[in-house]
Amino acid sequence: MKTSFKRIGGSVTAPQGFRAAGIAAGIKSSGKKDVALIVSDVAATAAATFTTNQVKAAPVKLSMEHVKSGKARAIVANSGNANACTKDGPIHARAMACAVSRRLGCKEEHVLVCSTGRIGENLPIVKVEAGIKDSLGKLSRTGGPLAAQAIMTTDTFAKEVAVQFKAGAKTFRVGGICKGAGMIQPKMATMLCFITTDAAVPRAALQKALRHAVDKSFNRVSVDGDTSTNDTVILLANGVAGAAPLGKFQEALDFVCLELAKMIVRDGEGVSKFVTIHVRGAASDRDAEIAARSVANSVLVKTSWCGGDPNWGRILDALGYSSARVNGEDVDIDYDGVAAVRGSRATRTPLAKLKKIVGKPTFTIDINLRIGRGQCTMHTCDLTEKYVELNKGE
Amino acid sequence: MKTSFKRIGGSVTAPQGFRAAGIAAGIKSSGKKDVALIVSDVAATAAATFTTNQVKAAPVKLSMEHVKSGKARAIVANSGNANACTKDGPIHARAMACAVSRRLGCKEEHVLVCSTGRIGENLPIVKVEAGIKDSLGKLSRTGGPLAAQAIMTTDTFAKEVAVQFKAGAKTFRVGGICKGAGMIQPKMATMLCFITTDAAVPRAALQKALRHAVDKSFNRVSVDGDTSTNDTVILLANGVAGAAPLGKFQEALDFVCLELAKMIVRDGEGVSKFVTIHVRGAASDRDAEIAARSVANSVLVKTSWCGGDPNWGRILDALGYSSARVNGEDVDIDYDGVAAVRGSRATRTPLAKLKKIVGKPTFTIDINLRIGRGQCTMHTCDLTEKYVELNKGE
Repeated sequence: MKTSFKRIGGSVTAPQGFRAAGIAAGIKSSGKKDVALIVSDVAATAAATFTTNQVKAAPVKLSMEHVKSGKARAIVANSGNANACTKDGPIHARAMACAVSRRLGCKEEHVLVCSTGRIGENLPIVKVEAGIKDSLGKLSRTGGPLAAQAIMTTDTFAKEVAVQFKAGAKTFRVGGICKGAGMIQPKMATMLCFITTDAAVPRAALQKALRHAVDKSFNRVSVDGDTSTNDTVILLANGVAGAAPLGKFQEALDFVCLELAKMIVRDGEGVSKFVTIHVRGAASDRDAEIAARSVANSVLVKTSWCGGDPNWGRILDALGYSSARVNGEDVDIDYDGVAAVRGSRATRTPLAKLKKIVGKPTFTIDINLRIGRGQCTMHTCDLTEKYVELNKGE
Repeated sequence: MKTSFKRIGGSVTAPQGFRAAGIAAGIKSSGKKDVALIVSDVAATAAATFTTNQVKAAPVKLSMEHVKSGKARAIVANSGNANACTKDGPIHARAMACAVSRRLGCKEEHVLVCSTGRIGENLPIVKVEAGIKDSLGKLSRTGGPLAAQAIMTTDTFAKEVAVQFKAGAKTFRVGGICKGAGMIQPKMATMLCFITTDAAVPRAALQKALRHAVDKSFNRVSVDGDTSTNDTVILLANGVAGAAPLGKFQEALDFVCLELAKMIVRDGEGVSKFVTIHVRGAASDRDAEIAARSVANSVLVKTSWCGGDPNWGRILDALGYSSARVNGEDVDIDYDGVAAVRGSRATRTPLAKLKKIVGKPTFTIDINLRIGRGQCTMHTCDLTEKYVELNKGE
């Protein structure tokens, strides 16, 4: 597929006029990096989407307020603690914004705050404030990778992507970082994702572009079906490179979001398989999404993938109990283009052939509900013993 | 609590006028029992509830037709194969009914048929028919336990319960067997459950009584959130002991269903904890059910129990992303009556005290949403490495 952009190295510091840092402030007992800071040299236009969970972490509530100003200079984030469901959460979130704004000399509301980690534990605010001070002194044009590391929780690799596109004589860049791993079924947002661009895009257009990109990326992946209290996606456009054509910008942004979302699935806790589910022939796009999500979140379907078992009966079962319209006698299922089920019955395809496909680390399942024209693509993963081991606590 | 009934030994053959058998017909490669037959000496009044899955197995469709007659002489069931999503499924299901009716000399529609096992594989009908013939010759008044064994799939113990109650000079009995283990989030029915009684109850009242009992038992348990294609609950009332007062009958039936439903959870695949979730203060009973189900089905909540981790943050998270009305700042949570969360914040209860509770094999979580008067009780279990191992296929 021909695109109007090309992939480049780096992430949030690839666009001009952005600096970042990632340092270890001692929030994580492991001693790993846990405070990330991204700063734009000039006030940037800001857009964001947040978790739809009715239980929202303190920083989410604060950032929802702050982003209303439409501008931001900085994003500050900590990992190792969600700053959710504690008495002092709101005070601590504000203290984080304040620690940045006072040293940058900007308004407090121009600082967006994020946290990720365990819910219900008090944020060690003294350590966090010291860490913020430290990271302000270490901001650099090559700090993107460090910031990406500092937002990791159970992630096994830092998630970064950047692209550039040209329009006339001008070159624009879009770069992003994110973290995922667990509690991942983003709805209207994901765990944490920060995107920067040096393109100038008006506020309303920027928010619309972000919503479009998020709906087709983070809202189409699922690791475990749990939607977090802290999900946040922030996009800062500082305009340093001038005004960009919206079409090309959207294309670049969509790519950055989808690449990052797929990385979240690939790095899902304990994941051994990356599975794309494409549902078509649904009564509506909404129905297609419901059907795809039901398959993607079925514990039994996910465990069968883990063992390399092409157990399409469990897929039919998950389609059947979803609230999407399904004709139980007329569903088609393909694995990597190989017909496994026609009219809800096994084809003559040898089981060994399907097993070979499901044994691979990456495969696609096409489901045709043969009712209408609705369709949806979801990216998901298997459920393994390792996932349970990672999440069962001390 | 004083009850009008008392527990007795046995199950489906405890009521008068019922015989049963369970034999090995070679459907299971393990050589274990796989054909169950329950026969009433006289035509019994029949009531049933079936899976709400839009993908229904052939025997479910057949039994839904047959039960419309309101009468039944026999229930025949096989384990080891779901007889679902295969070309010859409907023919095979009818063949099973026929094999029984022709030897009992009753109408084909007076035989109810059930299957449980893997979806999408052809039923070895020759073996099944031979097994049915064999079991007809082995019907006995003490055959209940054998029938209970013959419907097991990954169950680790046979599930049986029976009670008796008196009214005037008459004694009545209600007994049941069921199987569960995986693909368990029954909605309007459960995997397979067969209940018999020697009480005479009119058809409409019998169906209503069954619906009531099922809604408060099988529809309130969840192992893995997957609703099967084969769920069926059948109740046969042969009236051999005469007419029973409906109130006492309902009480006995409710108990039998709830005990069996709890056994399904206790014997869920790989389960190490039995957890009761009681939600109150919800905007409505329906909202309470949605909230309880969201917690019961959260992969992250279930894995935390597996490790004995009182991770109430994950419970708050699951409540928050459910579609039930939740005030994120005002939720109370107790573990076995010990206050863990008040107003969505940790209480001063030491973590060690909560850990001790969640470390037990059985505990109760009380959730107060502090909005209205809706409530719901669900029984569920943890998610373990063993569950994944059992379900990941060959």
